[in-house]
Amino acid sequence: MATPTRIGLAGLAVMGQNLALNIAEKGFPISVYNRSTSKVDETVERAKKEGNLPLYGFHDPESFVLSIQKPRVIIILVKAGLPVDQTIKTLSAFMEKGDCIIDGGNEWYENTERREKEMAELGLLYLGMGVSGGEEGARNGPSMMPGGSFEAYKYIEDILLKVAAQVPDSGPCVTYIGEGGSGNFVKMVHNGIEYGDMQLIAEAYDVLRSVGKLSNAELHQVFSEWNKGELLSFLIEITADIFGVKDDKADGYLVDKVLDKTGMKGTGKWTVQQAAELSVAAPTIAASLDSRFLSGLKDERVQAAKVFESSGVSDIFVEQTVDKNQLIDDVRKALYASKICSYAQGMNLIRAKSVEKGWDLKLGELARIWKGGCIIRAIFLDRIKGAYDRNPDLANLLVDEEFAKEMVERQSAWRRVVCLAINSGISTPGMSSSLAYFDSYRRESLPANLVQAQRDYFGAHTYERIDVPGAFHTEWFKIAKQSKN
Amino acid sequence: MATPTRIGLAGLAVMGQNLALNIAEKGFPISVYNRSTSKVDETVERAKKEGNLPLYGFHDPESFVLSIQKPRVIIILVKAGLPVDQTIKTLSAFMEKGDCIIDGGNEWYENTERREKEMAELGLLYLGMGVSGGEEGARNGPSMMPGGSFEAYKYIEDILLKVAAQVPDSGPCVTYIGEGGSGNFVKMVHNGIEYGDMQLIAEAYDVLRSVGKLSNAELHQVFSEWNKGELLSFLIEITADIFGVKDDKADGYLVDKVLDKTGMKGTGKWTVQQAAELSVAAPTIAASLDSRFLSGLKDERVQAAKVFESSGVSDIFVEQTVDKNQLIDDVRKALYASKICSYAQGMNLIRAKSVEKGWDLKLGELARIWKGGCIIRAIFLDRIKGAYDRNPDLANLLVDEEFAKEMVERQSAWRRVVCLAINSGISTPGMSSSLAYFDSYRRESLPANLVQAQRDYFGAHTYERIDVPGAFHTEWFKIAKQSKN
Repeated sequence: MATPTRIGLAGLAVMGQNLALNIAEKGFPISVYNRSTSKVDETVERAKKEGNLPLYGFHDPESFVLSIQKPRVIIILVKAGLPVDQTIKTLSAFMEKGDCIIDGGNEWYENTERREKEMAELGLLYLGMGVSGGEEGARNGPSMMPGGSFEAYKYIEDILLKVAAQVPDSGPCVTYIGEGGSGNFVKMVHNGIEYGDMQLIAEAYDVLRSVGKLSNAELHQVFSEWNKGELLSFLIEITADIFGVKDDKADGYLVDKVLDKTGMKGTGKWTVQQAAELSVAAPTIAASLDSRFLSGLKDERVQAAKVFESSGVSDIFVEQTVDKNQLIDDVRKALYASKICSYAQGMNLIRAKSVEKGWDLKLGELARIWKGGCIIRAIFLDRIKGAYDRNPDLANLLVDEEFAKEMVERQSAWRRVVCLAINSGISTPGMSSSLAYFDSYRRESLPANLVQAQRDYFGAHTYERIDVPGAFHTEWFKIAKQSKN
Repeated sequence: MATPTRIGLAGLAVMGQNLALNIAEKGFPISVYNRSTSKVDETVERAKKEGNLPLYGFHDPESFVLSIQKPRVIIILVKAGLPVDQTIKTLSAFMEKGDCIIDGGNEWYENTERREKEMAELGLLYLGMGVSGGEEGARNGPSMMPGGSFEAYKYIEDILLKVAAQVPDSGPCVTYIGEGGSGNFVKMVHNGIEYGDMQLIAEAYDVLRSVGKLSNAELHQVFSEWNKGELLSFLIEITADIFGVKDDKADGYLVDKVLDKTGMKGTGKWTVQQAAELSVAAPTIAASLDSRFLSGLKDERVQAAKVFESSGVSDIFVEQTVDKNQLIDDVRKALYASKICSYAQGMNLIRAKSVEKGWDLKLGELARIWKGGCIIRAIFLDRIKGAYDRNPDLANLLVDEEFAKEMVERQSAWRRVVCLAINSGISTPGMSSSLAYFDSYRRESLPANLVQAQRDYFGAHTYERIDVPGAFHTEWFKIAKQSKN
């Protein structure tokens, strides 16, 4: 290596290694570093194998940093939290004013904002960049959500535009998100939406399997078919794939051997906590998080199933007679309608934060950069982009004219599916909370008048009236007592 | 006032004033102080009127503190957060080693833990004590949840035992909760449960009103009747009262004139955030919080209602024919079953925190001290206490033999009500998320196997198998691709 490289990347676990190879493949010479040096050698080896890519490995942080052209740009991809702080400390010791660090992990947005300030004191620029797409996306084109220093973004825009997933008609899946921790925040909500999508698909599977008695082969067929229409998406595609995989250890299909306990990594939790913090209802995303929690209580569930079976409430306690084709069609519509609600929640959560922080985020642009590369990529995102193109100030996706029409067309099927599940003893927390969200949001008068009357009764919290402006308090107890006498 | 008083109370808003009068009435001479002195005079005036109670007002903090016998105990009842810190600073300047401060507000538990440490450095003892019951409870007997210094609790146990609500057969509604911020935490969850109860009652009201077409007079009758049975509780009682109150400004009943926008104060939000933090599913409480958020979007809802009405989806879009008496009976059962789920969530949240912090909280004791004085007081809490008496390690209230039996008896009615609401276009987010919680918890096999397979597909997160121990990873994509070729 005679001349300096264009960029550096530190942290060579799955994501880092693949993103580094992707960058090198796009023609940008890259220096790579990892604390445990075997990963460095492994990556260098892969770069050779995958076409003699311009990737250069370093075993110590100093020579790594110094190998990069100025102003230096280093992407770090290590575990969120303390490891990021440690890596920054190690690298920044050798960096100079005007250099830039980009954290590509799933970091809590406030950590990025703290670090951006700390780096500014050293004269360094900082970006927090959400990267979605898993191993495959990192290698061949992820969706990237960089937020923080616009100057830093400009240094590497040319790289990001080439490295990102490329979607015909809508361009590379990257854009400058906004200031501060906005890139991390948007990625966090992306993951929350991903939780929602996965849960809704799992519920569709459950209803088809448990009520409709579809075999894995039929499920494979159904999801493959769905992936040709409005549901076309990465997650539907891989679901179809999953139902086609036979077990290599025993008879049958592998999906039936996978234990029903779901792991998680924190961004879904943060999304739910932020929704509460920002007073945004996000019940579908919350239901998907709760479902992961309940899935984890396998032993308790096994015990509870025994308790209720002995009382005559078995797993699927009432067998329902259904028309298979009608059911498949209904479930598809229920899934799609629920998905719209989930995205409406996620988008409104992003907007609420954007308003709070003054980030001025463009919701349509986010839908655009999620169209490729990332886990939630879907044809459906085109419709969301369209909705915000039509009206950037749209209060809720549900009231966009196209989505409203789609909801109306699907609601009967949706209600049928949720009721069928309820009467079968199957839980569809994601679909039913989406439906409750829809029915609450489109309802002029909710029973919250009673709640507010209760609050005024016991806590003198006052209430407003529908007919006269102002705040009122009533001595409910006294009046009720008088009328009793 | 010749001799020192037994205790002091600072902060004479509604709660403080009434609690001070309560303490004085029980025969404990009390000093009171407030920053704005008019409240002091007002309280002294009330003490005279309400029977020459031994209550002494002070206009400056020093003479207030010095008027109290040593070791001094001062309850503060000011707004949570900064005002508490300011009040502590003002008062502690005149306090001596061994004196004690008790914060009676709805404080975030970590603030209490921080203050307990700060006070310890000054040689002062500290308690964070949740107080529930509103104005009326504070005056005549609240439920109190003191946590922190056990030594401090012992100083005032005699006062608390007399001041608390007294419940026949189960004693005063107070007990030492545990160390640190446990008193605040338990009060926070109490409030979350209160949110759930209020939401479930509002949904019952909505179904009876919107689907069953019950008049306010009939609703008054129904809730009065319900208050004689298994639902007997403060909130059902006041709900019955509310339906009996006529509007004094116009024709009709007042509840119909109350705007359907619900306020909130933060403890519900914290409960939901803590549930996520502790990996505890609390969907009923979360649904009640979301319902408050959605109630607040009145203008958006009015707009959305218009959008969907024009597409033929009106407020109550399908009128259902129902047998009124059957409906009333079904709704009562649905409300009760949903309530059990909500309490199961709240109790498990408290236990999860207790385990995390090593607080060793006694869930049955909490049910006992909530039986009187507080907003969620109900005959139903006896059953909860009974369940934990039978088995202190009960994994979930749902699997207690008595509750399990009650759930089984009510589930058909519950499913009918939720489906009726769904088919009418009425949202019952609390009842339906409770039902989904029940159906998930009692299910041996959830569709989480698919979610875990998806996670392994795109993120190599690995999975467990149902038949062989260990962590497995499959190249789903490669296998699926091969089988396609």
